[in-house]
Amino acid sequence: MAGNSILLAALSVLSACQQSYFAMQVGKARSKYKVTPPSVSGSPDFERIFRAQQNCVEFYPIFIITLWMAGWYFNQVFATCLGLVYIYSRHQYFWGYAEAAKKRVTGFRLSLGVLALLTVLGAVGILNSFLDEYLDIDIAKKLRHF
Amino acid sequence: MAGNSILLAALSVLSACQQSYFAMQVGKARSKYKVTPPSVSGSPDFERIFRAQQNCVEFYPIFIITLWMAGWYFNQVFATCLGLVYIYSRHQYFWGYAEAAKKRVTGFRLSLGVLALLTVLGAVGILNSFLDEYLDIDIAKKLRHF
Amino acid sequence: MAGNSILLAALSVLSACQQSYFAMQVGKARSKYKVTPPSVSGSPDFERIFRAQQNCVEFYPIFIITLWMAGWYFNQVFATCLGLVYIYSRHQYFWGYAEAAKKRVTGFRLSLGVLALLTVLGAVGILNSFLDEYLDIDIAKKLRHF
Repeated sequence: MAGNSILLAALSVLSACQQSYFAMQVGKARSKYKVTPPSVSGSPDFERIFRAQQNCVEFYPIFIITLWMAGWYFNQVFATCLGLVYIYSRHQYFWGYAEAAKKRVTGFRLSLGVLALLTVLGAVGILNSFLDEYLDIDIAKKLRHF
Repeated sequence: MAGNSILLAALSVLSACQQSYFAMQVGKARSKYKVTPPSVSGSPDFERIFRAQQNCVEFYPIFIITLWMAGWYFNQVFATCLGLVYIYSRHQYFWGYAEAAKKRVTGFRLSLGVLALLTVLGAVGILNSFLDEYLDIDIAKKLRHF
Repeated sequence: MAGNSILLAALSVLSACQQSYFAMQVGKARSKYKVTPPSVSGSPDFERIFRAQQNCVEFYPIFIITLWMAGWYFNQVFATCLGLVYIYSRHQYFWGYAEAAKKRVTGFRLSLGVLALLTVLGAVGILNSFLDEYLDIDIAKKLRHF
């Protein structure tokens, strides 16, 4: 498995770095806008950065799961490319939200699109493996046959 | 691994869809109760839905880890059934909490029970594999012997 | 894979228990400081415990990913030892923060150091596997040769 998942592994480490980077930005914003822990409110500028990071945190496990499932059961290279788009979309979302609440929308929509695609690919791949393993029906083969 | 984890994979994708669904409900509640981002307070109705989703987010990685460990090291089919119960309990919790803070309790307790069971099964399975691999003691075999 | 990941699996279950434990402490603090759900503010003592748990939640997926990648692609035993240090650092962080906001710093820095190390080890291991698999360059062998 470890050998066959190398691109997924590389992308996961990259995305983990991005998550740490976002968390560090919240720390920086704390000192810039003088929001002392444990408080998370008081300055609208800080609140936007904080909410942007929180949203990335919420979606991160969903991203990791759909990425690995699409990579394992559908196609690793394709899933990894989508993963790169997701990382880019979250970058856009985070810095957009940091500027103004309205500017978060473009990046957010892109990230949702990537997640939806990864979910569909994962589901299709899993269904195909399931039919192949349990019912001995190989759809990919049949499609190639036609 | 990918072939032997197909039920866990399917359940993980399903639970990721549920998490996305909860996040979408928070978005809907934002417009319904007129809570503009980045704010997350102001309306008690919104706050309950938001807290319900946040709680699901907090427990999601714990669920995924114990699910896969119980599935890999104990029994995949049994772990997957427990996973289905967990998804149901979170559904109950979320919509209960959305109605009233008190109505969250039943679903929450069920979800904790499932998590506890998955943790115990995972730990037992890992211990068994550990004894088998490192100390060459196969407990499952010995139990069958008696 | 499951056989070769047994230490990572054991550590993951242990860390999942720690996360559940932190969540339970927030529940206890709710009744102690009389903060009724869905509210998460009102008492500074509760807020510190809540923020401590939230921070652990934020970093948990990052920890799990870098732990497994370092364990799969670099060295399982070494990654597991670092994982134990991480669990200890989060324990120190949580209870430090619960006492006073300033007392969170030591544990937090230790946890960041461990995460950074796991990330570097994971990246090095993945790079090595990548070169070995795709370009047929085995760095570890060459290093041993010198």
